[in-house]
Amino acid sequence: MATSNCLYHSCRLFTSLRITRQRKDFFNISQTKYFSYSYSTMFRSSEMQDQDIALLQVNRKRLMDELHHTCQWGIGERWGDGSNETGMRRLSLTDDDKSVRDWFIKTTQGLGCTTTIDTMGNIFAVRPGIKKGAPTYAGSHLDTQPQGGRYDGILGVQAGIEMLKILNENRVETEYPVGVVNWTNEEGARFPLSVHASAVWADKLPLSQAHGLASIIPPNKPTPFIDELSRIGYHGPTPCSYTANPMAAHFELHIEQGPQLEATGRKVGIVTGAQAYRWYTVSVSGKSCHTGTTPFEHRADPLLIAAKCMVQAQASAHIKKGALASTGVVKVAPGSVNTVPDEVTFSLDLRAQSDGVLDDLEKELKTVFKQLADGDDSCNTESFWAGNRKPCTVEWRTDSVSKAVNFNESCIECVAKSARSVLVLAGKDDTSAMRLVSGAGHDSVMTSHRVPTAMIFVPSREGISHNPREFTSEEDCAIGAEVLTQSVLRYDRLRVQ
Amino acid sequence: MATSNCLYHSCRLFTSLRITRQRKDFFNISQTKYFSYSYSTMFRSSEMQDQDIALLQVNRKRLMDELHHTCQWGIGERWGDGSNETGMRRLSLTDDDKSVRDWFIKTTQGLGCTTTIDTMGNIFAVRPGIKKGAPTYAGSHLDTQPQGGRYDGILGVQAGIEMLKILNENRVETEYPVGVVNWTNEEGARFPLSVHASAVWADKLPLSQAHGLASIIPPNKPTPFIDELSRIGYHGPTPCSYTANPMAAHFELHIEQGPQLEATGRKVGIVTGAQAYRWYTVSVSGKSCHTGTTPFEHRADPLLIAAKCMVQAQASAHIKKGALASTGVVKVAPGSVNTVPDEVTFSLDLRAQSDGVLDDLEKELKTVFKQLADGDDSCNTESFWAGNRKPCTVEWRTDSVSKAVNFNESCIECVAKSARSVLVLAGKDDTSAMRLVSGAGHDSVMTSHRVPTAMIFVPSREGISHNPREFTSEEDCAIGAEVLTQSVLRYDRLRVQ
Repeated sequence: MATSNCLYHSCRLFTSLRITRQRKDFFNISQTKYFSYSYSTMFRSSEMQDQDIALLQVNRKRLMDELHHTCQWGIGERWGDGSNETGMRRLSLTDDDKSVRDWFIKTTQGLGCTTTIDTMGNIFAVRPGIKKGAPTYAGSHLDTQPQGGRYDGILGVQAGIEMLKILNENRVETEYPVGVVNWTNEEGARFPLSVHASAVWADKLPLSQAHGLASIIPPNKPTPFIDELSRIGYHGPTPCSYTANPMAAHFELHIEQGPQLEATGRKVGIVTGAQAYRWYTVSVSGKSCHTGTTPFEHRADPLLIAAKCMVQAQASAHIKKGALASTGVVKVAPGSVNTVPDEVTFSLDLRAQSDGVLDDLEKELKTVFKQLADGDDSCNTESFWAGNRKPCTVEWRTDSVSKAVNFNESCIECVAKSARSVLVLAGKDDTSAMRLVSGAGHDSVMTSHRVPTAMIFVPSREGISHNPREFTSEEDCAIGAEVLTQSVLRYDRLRVQ
Repeated sequence: MATSNCLYHSCRLFTSLRITRQRKDFFNISQTKYFSYSYSTMFRSSEMQDQDIALLQVNRKRLMDELHHTCQWGIGERWGDGSNETGMRRLSLTDDDKSVRDWFIKTTQGLGCTTTIDTMGNIFAVRPGIKKGAPTYAGSHLDTQPQGGRYDGILGVQAGIEMLKILNENRVETEYPVGVVNWTNEEGARFPLSVHASAVWADKLPLSQAHGLASIIPPNKPTPFIDELSRIGYHGPTPCSYTANPMAAHFELHIEQGPQLEATGRKVGIVTGAQAYRWYTVSVSGKSCHTGTTPFEHRADPLLIAAKCMVQAQASAHIKKGALASTGVVKVAPGSVNTVPDEVTFSLDLRAQSDGVLDDLEKELKTVFKQLADGDDSCNTESFWAGNRKPCTVEWRTDSVSKAVNFNESCIECVAKSARSVLVLAGKDDTSAMRLVSGAGHDSVMTSHRVPTAMIFVPSREGISHNPREFTSEEDCAIGAEVLTQSVLRYDRLRVQ
């Protein structure tokens, strides 16, 4: 992809000019948000004080207008009467995805960036720094769920572009390049593997396997990823690899997709890592019989056991700090009203903030499920059922394992300081930010395996996500974008200390 | 359908001859099973003593040979290597069903019966008595489940035919006519309404509705019952009605389809009635959310509530005498591993021996389910969950109601006396019979609304039914057929007392 950075080059002519101590004092004294810089003045990130960085503010209207503008590509389900009250259906590598990618390249090039496309279609827009070297990125994704909203992923990319605009407007020059990355198929909706392309970049998934993954969403017949990537013209020449196309750090602004920030009245989540999670399919086998003719003591009812296991899983997780247990899929065979089933399978999604807690939870549940299947309820509650029926058997199949991730301490500190800075200037209490652990997977989990990474969360209304009604207020989007911008700048400063 | 009773008419010439006291004394003294009657001797049921009736024995080999012979029509799944170790798939009004119906008519006419077919295809084979009047019937059904066995329904009809043979061989003349009825579509498998044709006969289902019921089992497209009934030539002229085509009493031999007789070492069940049952669809509504990002206290998880309800339903039923609660169908939406569901529906099948107990159980569960959905677990067990999440809502839909049925006392006594008679002669303990209540529905439940009715159960191996492996031993089939024969004779005797 051709490079276009003419606007930026016009600024680069003035790199010898530096912000003066006097100017910074003025900032400190006035506490206004007004910059009276001349076009000849450049601010070098490593010389900016915290107070200076604090004054780099988002144009909230511009941020939201641009976000909603791009939602013309992939309009989803309408949920309200407002012009922006539609959800999103922008599946990876569709024509809508191509349109928003074209917009991304045109926009970032217009802001002075060099753009690079790799072999997985990831797009890296880079704004040059004073020195050469790996860029510090703001990144997220522009693809959505089939019944998705306007914020998941999209906000993170749009905030990165707003960052570029702020840096340009304020004539900030960074020590090293900074940039914005749009990761391909984060949702894993059309091609059924989430964080699909960032996993290849992090060398956690072979390219050939990633290219071969077939689409699962109609109306098209199953089509390999690589075919669709080529079709929309986004099979780039740059190797998808953290070694061939390195980054210095990765910051990601994302909606929380959960209720904790809103419920506690907070505005910013300082994300310190991601939960460990494991997915299992648990199968309980019993013996089918007639519901009308078979007394309880003669039954081996696998659905009764499965029901107890589901309740017990949540109870066991509940008493372990921060652990979660959930079931979303249940299959009952043969599935007749007057037949006690002979086989029940259910999904089990276990999560915890550490691998050790998850190990303990898995071990405990394997023991308890067997006790329940054997007819021993003493582990649970009243013994109203103990020994009162024939045993079932339980089998576990592990479908997916994701280890706990701890984000980089320096990156987390950049986010924490930036959050404090933004919130104080916005007149918020310092406690309006909280540290939390991501429950969902993100591209940042993949980048964190290779480079310093941290994330910023902003509130999701009612915790709703993967839903057309997903919503984050303009104020919260703007706060998040400012924290993102400052975090990138703070990290850039760190690189020369 | 034409009448053919030539064989019987040849016997009717001798109706003036009666069994002598001397002969009966011989029976009492000898206690042998050998009849040395001449062809000119007829035994009149009302003059037979209990000891005489006891000597009317089944030809076990003939009974089983005939049963297995007719299983050539509708061969199902093979489950063993033996020649008879296949299940049955004889769906109502199929060509296989027509074949076995043709056999039924030919066989019963050959035994001297008049046959009548009604507008639902029920076939009534009647052996004349001394007096005219409504016949006392042995009845059951020749249709099976799609994956059915060789005994459910079939045994009852075959035992009725064996009864006709025994009466002929022993030259027994009944006071009133006796007969055998084959009820249409008892299983409700192909046309989805069980006891379909006996319900019309009992005026519990309008004929037009019964005729319009469409088939649900492929490969044929849905076809109205009446079309298939006409196609196989079994749309008879006699009104399907207990008034137009009355019966004096209905006795049904059936396999237990449950484990109680086998588990307690018994041979005969004296069925005193049928359970009340009600089918419900229970819907629990919550709010879907991401399994990874939503702490328990922010969830309204309908699957957790549904699981607790299923456990609680069985616990509540368990402490009520003889009540049962079962779930065989569960639907979870949207059904994704990492999404807490927003809607769960499950079937609930409640049964009890009386309508009052079922009323109590339903009332209790409606209260308890609501408490569980509201987050109150105090009704259940430990309060590990109380108040710890957001509420769900529960709705009940009643899909089917069947009131408890008490069979006729006189008929039950006929069965009880016959069971004692058969078991003593077979060298069994008198305790080898037990009184029980049918858990499943049967045509006898329908006939019992209009005429004196009772049932006889024989053991089902391991309680298995609606399964190719359904099995009842030759001895148990023969005992059941003898109890059936004696019960019909005893009831016939009662009619002239």
